[in-house]
Amino acid sequence: MSDLRRDPVSGSWVVISPEQGPSVKLERFERYQTPENECPFCPGRESDTGPEILYSPPLKAKKKEIKWGVRVIPNRVPVLRTDLALEREGMGMFDRMTGVGAHEIVIDSPEHSLDLKDFPIDQFAQMLQAWRERLVDLHRDSRLRYVSIFKNQGRRAGARISHPHSQIIATPMIPITIRDELESARGYFKYKERCLFMDLIGQELEAETRLVLQSRGFVVFCPFASRFPFEMWVLPRRQSCNYGTVVDEEIQDLAEVLSAVSKALALSLLDPDLNLILKTAPNPDQRRRQWMTLEDDFLWHLEIIPRIFRPCGYEAATGMYVNPTPPEEAAASLRESLSRVDGRRGHG
Amino acid sequence: MSDLRRDPVSGSWVVISPEQGPSVKLERFERYQTPENECPFCPGRESDTGPEILYSPPLKAKKKEIKWGVRVIPNRVPVLRTDLALEREGMGMFDRMTGVGAHEIVIDSPEHSLDLKDFPIDQFAQMLQAWRERLVDLHRDSRLRYVSIFKNQGRRAGARISHPHSQIIATPMIPITIRDELESARGYFKYKERCLFMDLIGQELEAETRLVLQSRGFVVFCPFASRFPFEMWVLPRRQSCNYGTVVDEEIQDLAEVLSAVSKALALSLLDPDLNLILKTAPNPDQRRRQWMTLEDDFLWHLEIIPRIFRPCGYEAATGMYVNPTPPEEAAASLRESLSRVDGRRGHG
Repeated sequence: MSDLRRDPVSGSWVVISPEQGPSVKLERFERYQTPENECPFCPGRESDTGPEILYSPPLKAKKKEIKWGVRVIPNRVPVLRTDLALEREGMGMFDRMTGVGAHEIVIDSPEHSLDLKDFPIDQFAQMLQAWRERLVDLHRDSRLRYVSIFKNQGRRAGARISHPHSQIIATPMIPITIRDELESARGYFKYKERCLFMDLIGQELEAETRLVLQSRGFVVFCPFASRFPFEMWVLPRRQSCNYGTVVDEEIQDLAEVLSAVSKALALSLLDPDLNLILKTAPNPDQRRRQWMTLEDDFLWHLEIIPRIFRPCGYEAATGMYVNPTPPEEAAASLRESLSRVDGRRGHG
Repeated sequence: MSDLRRDPVSGSWVVISPEQGPSVKLERFERYQTPENECPFCPGRESDTGPEILYSPPLKAKKKEIKWGVRVIPNRVPVLRTDLALEREGMGMFDRMTGVGAHEIVIDSPEHSLDLKDFPIDQFAQMLQAWRERLVDLHRDSRLRYVSIFKNQGRRAGARISHPHSQIIATPMIPITIRDELESARGYFKYKERCLFMDLIGQELEAETRLVLQSRGFVVFCPFASRFPFEMWVLPRRQSCNYGTVVDEEIQDLAEVLSAVSKALALSLLDPDLNLILKTAPNPDQRRRQWMTLEDDFLWHLEIIPRIFRPCGYEAATGMYVNPTPPEEAAASLRESLSRVDGRRGHG
C-alpha cells in the first residue's frame, strides 16, 4: 500500500509506492566511458585546460610523471563568467541579469576511470578540501550569492566526460531550491529555536530504521520522504551552516564515511550512476543582508542521489516524486552491504 | 554570452547559455516501441484492463472491430487508490497520509504507434474531452485536492508503454510546484488586480519574438525563461483557472493548435520525446477553503517539454536549469517549421 510522506526540509510530498514493481533494479550496466587517449582531464594534458585555479600534491603516484592529486580548472565553456559587469534589468514583467558567476571543474583524481567506491580515502579528502577552498575563495566575491558544488557520476547522472570530476557553479542569486530550504529551516528555527536538521538527526538516531551509518562527526540516513530509491543524506553533528568552516579532521572523517557508503551503495544497487550534492549556506556577506539568520538555523550537508530511474511528466508537472523503495528497506540493504564491506562498521 | 532570466510564474532563474554547444541536437533517434502483440492498450485486449471508466466512440475506424476512440481505465498498479480511508498522522517531525488518490490511464488512440504529430485533430479533441470529463468527475471527490494530467511521449520522457496514452494522478494535497505557481499568481493578482498569465499573453503578443502561434482562443509561445530547449506554453485567451470549464468549441480550436505545434516541433527537433502537461486549479471545493481566490487570478494552461537532454546534478541541487537554446531562437525555428507544415498559418 502506498504511503504519502512530507519532507520537513523542502515541504514537498512523495509517494512511497512499493507496489510499483521491483524496487531495486538489479541490472548492472556498463559505466559509460569517454576515451582515455583524448581525455582533457588526464595527466599529461594539463596545458590543454585553462590556467590552474588550485592544485593538490599527488597522493602516492604510481607513475612519477603525475604531479597532482586534484586540480581545479575553469570550465572551458563556462555557463557563467566572472569577467562581466553585473547588470540587472527589468523588461516589463521579466527580470534579467548578465551571466555573471563562476563555473569551475574539480578534477577529482588523476586516474581516468575511478568510481567513487574505489576512491582511496585520501583522494576523497583531497576532493573535499578542494571544495572547501574554492567555496571560501568564491565567497570573497560579494556578487556571488550562492556556490553550488556537485558531482555527476555516470551518464544517467549527467556526466559528459567520464574522468572523475566535480563542478562548481556560483550564481549572483540564491537558487530556488536552496531558498526554499533556507526559508523552511528559518521558519522551523523561529518556531522551535532549534535547528531543523539537528532535530532530524535526533529523530533518525532514535528511530534507527532509516539509519545507514554514523561516525564521530557524521550521520548518514535515507530520508523519511526519499524522492529516489536509496537516496542518502550525510549530516554533520557539529552545527555549522557553512561548509567553508569544516576543519581537516572533519574532512578526514567525512572521507571515510563517503568511502564506506559509496562501497555499500555500489553493492546494494550494482554500481548505480549518481549525483553527489553539497548544500551549504549562501555567501555570508549576502546572508547578512538578505538572510538575517543565525549560524544555527541551517546545517550544511551532502545528498547522494542514485540515478536508476528517469523522471517522467508527473515530476515535471508537480514536483512530486513516486519512489518504489521505502527508505527503511533501502537503509536495511545499505547496512547489510556495509557489514560486508567492512565488518567493523555498524550503524550503532 | 549567457543570460540569467527569471520566470515570473515559478520565480526561478534559468541560465540561457548558447555557448553550451549545438543548441539543437540534430540526431534523430528511433522512438522506443513496446511490442504490439502483447500491448495491453491495443484493441482486442480490452478485457485485460480494469473496468472502463470512460469511453469515446471510434473516429472512422478502418477496422470494424475497433469499438472506441479513447478509453479511460484504472492503472493496473495504481500509485494511489480511492478505496482507502484518508488518514493523516504526525510522526515526530514527519507527516504522513494514507495513499488515497486516483491513478487512471487515458488510452489516447486505438492505434499502437501514433506520435502526437500524426494524431488526427479529432483524436486530439477526443483526448482533450476525456481529460476534461475525468477532471470534472474527480473534483466531485472532495478528498482529492489536485488532479494532475500529463502525457509522456517516448522513453526519455518516462513512457514505459509506447502505445499513446496519458495519465491522471489525483492527490489528497496540492503538489508543491502547483502550490508555488498558485501563490505566485495570487501575489501578482493582489498587487496588480490582473491575472499574471493574461499579462504574460499581452507581453508576448507585443514582443512577438517568442510567439509561435495564435488562434482564436489560444496563444502559444516559448517562455522567456524556458528551462528546456523548445519548451512551449499554450495559454487560453479566455480567463478560467479550471480546465473543467473548457467548452467543446475551445477543445476543437485547441486540438488544431496542438496538432500544428506538434508537427512543427517534430520538424524542428527531429521527433523529440516530450511531456505534455496540463496545469489547472485545485479542486474548487478545496480551493474555496484553502485558496480563497477569485476565478481570475490563475489561468489553466498546457506546457510542452521536449526531452533532448538529461537533467544533471545542478538541476537536482538547485532547481536551476541551464538551457543552451534561447527561446527567441526556438520560436523562430518553430514558426519556420509551422510555415512548412501549413502555409495558411503564421503567428500573426
